[in-house]
Amino acid sequence: METAYNLIGAGLIVIGGGIGLGQIGGKAMEAIARQPEAAGKIQTAMIIIGALLEGLAFGALLLGKN
Amino acid sequence: METAYNLIGAGLIVIGGGIGLGQIGGKAMEAIARQPEAAGKIQTAMIIIGALLEGLAFGALLLGKN
Amino acid sequence: METAYNLIGAGLIVIGGGIGLGQIGGKAMEAIARQPEAAGKIQTAMIIIGALLEGLAFGALLLGKN
Amino acid sequence: METAYNLIGAGLIVIGGGIGLGQIGGKAMEAIARQPEAAGKIQTAMIIIGALLEGLAFGALLLGKN
Amino acid sequence: METAYNLIGAGLIVIGGGIGLGQIGGKAMEAIARQPEAAGKIQTAMIIIGALLEGLAFGALLLGKN
Amino acid sequence: METAYNLIGAGLIVIGGGIGLGQIGGKAMEAIARQPEAAGKIQTAMIIIGALLEGLAFGALLLGKN
Amino acid sequence: METAYNLIGAGLIVIGGGIGLGQIGGKAMEAIARQPEAAGKIQTAMIIIGALLEGLAFGALLLGKN
Amino acid sequence: METAYNLIGAGLIVIGGGIGLGQIGGKAMEAIARQPEAAGKIQTAMIIIGALLEGLAFGALLLGKN
Amino acid sequence: METAYNLIGAGLIVIGGGIGLGQIGGKAMEAIARQPEAAGKIQTAMIIIGALLEGLAFGALLLGKN
Amino acid sequence: METAYNLIGAGLIVIGGGIGLGQIGGKAMEAIARQPEAAGKIQTAMIIIGALLEGLAFGALLLGKN
Amino acid sequence: METAYNLIGAGLIVIGGGIGLGQIGGKAMEAIARQPEAAGKIQTAMIIIGALLEGLAFGALLLGKN
Amino acid sequence: METAYNLIGAGLIVIGGGIGLGQIGGKAMEAIARQPEAAGKIQTAMIIIGALLEGLAFGALLLGKN
Amino acid sequence: METAYNLIGAGLIVIGGGIGLGQIGGKAMEAIARQPEAAGKIQTAMIIIGALLEGLAFGALLLGKN
Amino acid sequence: METAYNLIGAGLIVIGGGIGLGQIGGKAMEAIARQPEAAGKIQTAMIIIGALLEGLAFGALLLGKN
Repeated sequence: METAYNLIGAGLIVIGGGIGLGQIGGKAMEAIARQPEAAGKIQTAMIIIGALLEGLAFGALLLGKN
Repeated sequence: METAYNLIGAGLIVIGGGIGLGQIGGKAMEAIARQPEAAGKIQTAMIIIGALLEGLAFGALLLGKN
Repeated sequence: METAYNLIGAGLIVIGGGIGLGQIGGKAMEAIARQPEAAGKIQTAMIIIGALLEGLAFGALLLGKN
Repeated sequence: METAYNLIGAGLIVIGGGIGLGQIGGKAMEAIARQPEAAGKIQTAMIIIGALLEGLAFGALLLGKN
Repeated sequence: METAYNLIGAGLIVIGGGIGLGQIGGKAMEAIARQPEAAGKIQTAMIIIGALLEGLAFGALLLGKN
Repeated sequence: METAYNLIGAGLIVIGGGIGLGQIGGKAMEAIARQPEAAGKIQTAMIIIGALLEGLAFGALLLGKN
Repeated sequence: METAYNLIGAGLIVIGGGIGLGQIGGKAMEAIARQPEAAGKIQTAMIIIGALLEGLAFGALLLGKN
Repeated sequence: METAYNLIGAGLIVIGGGIGLGQIGGKAMEAIARQPEAAGKIQTAMIIIGALLEGLAFGALLLGKN
Repeated sequence: METAYNLIGAGLIVIGGGIGLGQIGGKAMEAIARQPEAAGKIQTAMIIIGALLEGLAFGALLLGKN
Repeated sequence: METAYNLIGAGLIVIGGGIGLGQIGGKAMEAIARQPEAAGKIQTAMIIIGALLEGLAFGALLLGKN
Repeated sequence: METAYNLIGAGLIVIGGGIGLGQIGGKAMEAIARQPEAAGKIQTAMIIIGALLEGLAFGALLLGKN
Repeated sequence: METAYNLIGAGLIVIGGGIGLGQIGGKAMEAIARQPEAAGKIQTAMIIIGALLEGLAFGALLLGKN
Repeated sequence: METAYNLIGAGLIVIGGGIGLGQIGGKAMEAIARQPEAAGKIQTAMIIIGALLEGLAFGALLLGKN
Repeated sequence: METAYNLIGAGLIVIGGGIGLGQIGGKAMEAIARQPEAAGKIQTAMIIIGALLEGLAFGALLLGKN
């Protein structure tokens, strides 16, 4: 039964990541469509904040597991 | 009973992925419709962020299982 | 009782898929209605992101079951 | 008591399908009302994405049951 | 106590159907009010997608019960 | 205690019906107010989709009970 | 303890009725305010759909109780 | 402990009534502010639909209790 | 432990009342701000529908308690 | 353990009061900002409906406790 | 374990207070920004309704505790 | 196990505080951006209502703990 | 099992902080984009309210733990 | 079973972080698209508030674990 609860916890992490990355990615595309010439700046910010969240998610996954 | 809880956890992961990918994909199409000539840049950003989320989901699926 | 929990887990996967595919498909149609001449590009993006989510859902269904 | 939990799981699948198909169908009609002359393209996209979701729902129903 | 859980499961199916059919039917009427001359096309789409969902709901009801 | 769980299940069915019929009926009235001369077509669509949902609700009520 | 669960089930039925009737009634008034001269048609539709839901609610109340 | 569950059930009924009556009453006032000269018709509709919901709530309260 | 569950039930009643009265009162003020000269009619309607909900809440409180 | 459940019930009452009073108070301020010269009428209505809700909350607190 | 449930109950009270005070305070600032010259009237109303809610919250905290 | 439930209760308090302070702070900034010259009045109101909520949160934290 | 419940409680605190800080930070950026020349005032308010919430969160974390 | 609950707690932390960072990052991109020349100021604010939340999340992860 151990692995099953593990997957539920992992599922919550992915929900968290999905809420965050979906919001970030969706708005990033909206922003590019509005200012195509600012696509570079937007993609930079998207990757910074995306990496911050991705790091938090994998950090929690590994710290929560050990 | 083991496999059943597994599926519930996997279901939460798919919910997370669905929230994120749905938001990303939906906004991407909205953006293409608004700026058809920026479709290349938008699709690039869509695939980057989508891969980030897809990677998180499969990583959680495998890490949560072992 | 085994199969019943299985169905609940499978139901969560379909909810995840429904949220994602509904969002993707709904926005895709909205986008086609706004730019009918960009229907090709939009349908390409819709199928890419839809396949990504479909793959995640079936992958979770099979991985979560075994 | 077996069949009862089965129905709850099946109910979740229908909720998932209802969220997705409702969103897809509702937006499709909105789109047809906005661009009646693009009704063919829209209906094609509606049936592709609807079949994708319908397939996922029945696949989950059968895989989750056995 | 058997039949009671059955009704809860059946209730979830109706909730799923209500979300989907309500969304489909509501948008269909909105669409007819916007383009009364396109009422035929809209009603066709409404019946296709409605039948898809109705079929899923009854399929789940029967498959989940046996 | 049997009848009490029955009522909870029946309550869920009515919630499903309320979400659907409320959405359908509310949008129908909005549509009539916008196009009073299209009231006939709108009422036809309202009754078709309403009957579809009503049928699903009573079918689930009877199938879930036996 | 029997009657208490009964009241919870009855409460869910009233929640369902409240969601539906509130939506129907609220939109009906909005519609009358927009087209006061169409008040007759709107009230007819309001009573048809309201009776449909009221009938479902009392049917569920009685069927769920016996 | 009997009376306590009773109160929880009664609370759900009041939540249902609050959602419905709040929606009905709130929209009625909005409608009167928009068309002060149609206040009579609006108040008639408000009282019909309000009485319908009030009747359902008290009917459920009494039927659920016995 | 008796009184504690009582308070939970009473809390649900107040939540119901708060949703309803907040919606009614909030919209009433919005309406007065839009049509200050119709303040009398609006306040009449506000008190009728408020009394209806207040009566339901206290009726449920007393009936649920005995 | 008695007092703890008491606090949970009391917390639900405050949530109900917060939803209602927040809605009432927030809209009242919005209304004053829109029609500063109608501030008297608005404050009268705000206090009537606020007192109604406050009375319901304290009535439920005392009745639920004894 | 006593104090822990106490904190959960207290947490629900703060959630209620946060919903209410946040709504009141947020709208108050919005109102001041729209009508800076009516800041006095708005702040008066904000403090009346805020005190009403604060009083309810502390009253519930003390009554629920004893 | 004592401290764990404590943290859950404390978490609910922070959720309450986050909903309230986030709403207050977010609207305050929106207001300053709209009327930069009214920043003083807005900050005064922000601190009054923020202190009210902060006081409620710490009061509940300490009262709920002892 | 002790540390696990601790993490759940800590998770609720972070949810509270995320709701609040996200709202504050998001609106702050919106505000800067609208009034770039008022960026100083906005950042001051953002840090005051952010520190208030951060302090509440860490205070609850430490008080809830001991 | 220990590690599993740990992952659930960690999942809640990531949900909190995802709500916050998603809101912050999404609004930041929207803001850059609106004022590309203010991208520096916006990115500064984004990193300050993001670091605040990131710090809270990791602090809660470590404090909740020990």
